Amino acid sequence: MTSNEKIWTAALVVIGDEILSGRTADKNIVQIASWLQVQGIRLSEVRVVSDDPDAIAHAVNALRAAHDYMFTTGGIGPTHDDITVDAVAAALGVNVVIHPEARAMLDAYYADKPGGLTEARLRMARVPEGASLIPNRMSGAPGIRHGNIFLMAGVPHITAQMLDGLTGTLEGGAPLLTETIGCWTAESEVADILREIEQAHESCQIGSYPFFREGRIGANFVIRSTSRNILSSAVDTLCEALGEEGYDFTPGGI
Amino acid sequence: MTSNEKIWTAALVVIGDEILSGRTADKNIVQIASWLQVQGIRLSEVRVVSDDPDAIAHAVNALRAAHDYMFTTGGIGPTHDDITVDAVAAALGVNVVIHPEARAMLDAYYADKPGGLTEARLRMARVPEGASLIPNRMSGAPGIRHGNIFLMAGVPHITAQMLDGLTGTLEGGAPLLTETIGCWTAESEVADILREIEQAHESCQIGSYPFFREGRIGANFVIRSTSRNILSSAVDTLCEALGEEGYDFTPGGI
Repeated sequence: MTSNEKIWTAALVVIGDEILSGRTADKNIVQIASWLQVQGIRLSEVRVVSDDPDAIAHAVNALRAAHDYMFTTGGIGPTHDDITVDAVAAALGVNVVIHPEARAMLDAYYADKPGGLTEARLRMARVPEGASLIPNRMSGAPGIRHGNIFLMAGVPHITAQMLDGLTGTLEGGAPLLTETIGCWTAESEVADILREIEQAHESCQIGSYPFFREGRIGANFVIRSTSRNILSSAVDTLCEALGEEGYDFTPGGI
Repeated sequence: MTSNEKIWTAALVVIGDEILSGRTADKNIVQIASWLQVQGIRLSEVRVVSDDPDAIAHAVNALRAAHDYMFTTGGIGPTHDDITVDAVAAALGVNVVIHPEARAMLDAYYADKPGGLTEARLRMARVPEGASLIPNRMSGAPGIRHGNIFLMAGVPHITAQMLDGLTGTLEGGAPLLTETIGCWTAESEVADILREIEQAHESCQIGSYPFFREGRIGANFVIRSTSRNILSSAVDTLCEALGEEGYDFTPGGI
């Protein structure tokens, strides 16, 4: 990475009382973060907010201005607690309208299902005025794009479909490359080695993630860089240093 | 809940590039959210930020003022990427000092371990000036409390130990009670029922969480209230309404 290369960043707003109550473990952070990595976009911040219009609007306005892209998950379904579209429209200062293409998608999807396109289901065709759609083959209800904002489903496998539809359409930069080295040691024993190698390799970060497994203490060291050469050099230096000190380490991680 | 009863709220800052890169799935949000529920404290907002001093300090200052309690997870270990103490001290405008009791704890813990209390390990005795300690029987390194701020470990089972040490020590209000009713139906079919029952029961929220399982579409409806009576009435009304419409539903959830 040269110093004037643009780093593309994204933020994510996870919307849902079910996450904040501890009832449901979020799966969208990992999914969206991993997908963004491949697009050369860095997830820089996540906020989890409750099903509250002001909380959503506040987070949306703070993050859409600070990042190239902003995603939300949750709250775009057919029930009364699905308020994301209204909250985002309020944040943007635009009206909520029925998107004709979304209505047609839902019409087709519910044509052969009991009840057909009810008023509740038609809620899923509502978008902030000016939005375009993100297709979703899974359930008929599309995701929504408005400028740099992407409103995705809360159910992880539906969000996966929407991400699939977006793959390759967002401009990004050089992807952040990572290598992991696992080592059976207390991270505190090798803290000096890690710090020195990070300092000696510009634009390279080393994270240390301790664990306790099979009755033994260990840590994975994750080295990140956008430059293949710098990454290789840091990995080689670290393996050499761990070997010299006699540690039991595994390239690729434990 | 009467309208003038105080609702105690907390926020959580999850610190770690490993979460934002998608490498590690966070487990502390669920853990801390569930623990807070039992203490009668509501988790109102979570932010996940990178290992960046400014990002941490910004989140800490925004959230500690807005909530009764603020927790952080991650970045309090012995390595160079553990910068939470420094970032929080900067946010508070206080110095970083070695806490004598923490040093004694680490001294005792590392007395019989190779290397003893090295300089890297002594990093784990550093606290923002004015802090007290949260005991941790697991690894010797304590959590840190400073006013309404609680700095916890990133490794979930160590955080669990620290929460255990805090149990019953934080003032809270009436715990939010929840009941779940599972139903084999598209949530869009019962959207009207849910909305009407929520509207008819003051200070009661109903969340609808759809799923696709065993080849069938269903949803869990989660009803929340601090009042046992209001909760029971809402649950009974919902079961009655689902039964009248002939739906296949299960109290307790699917």
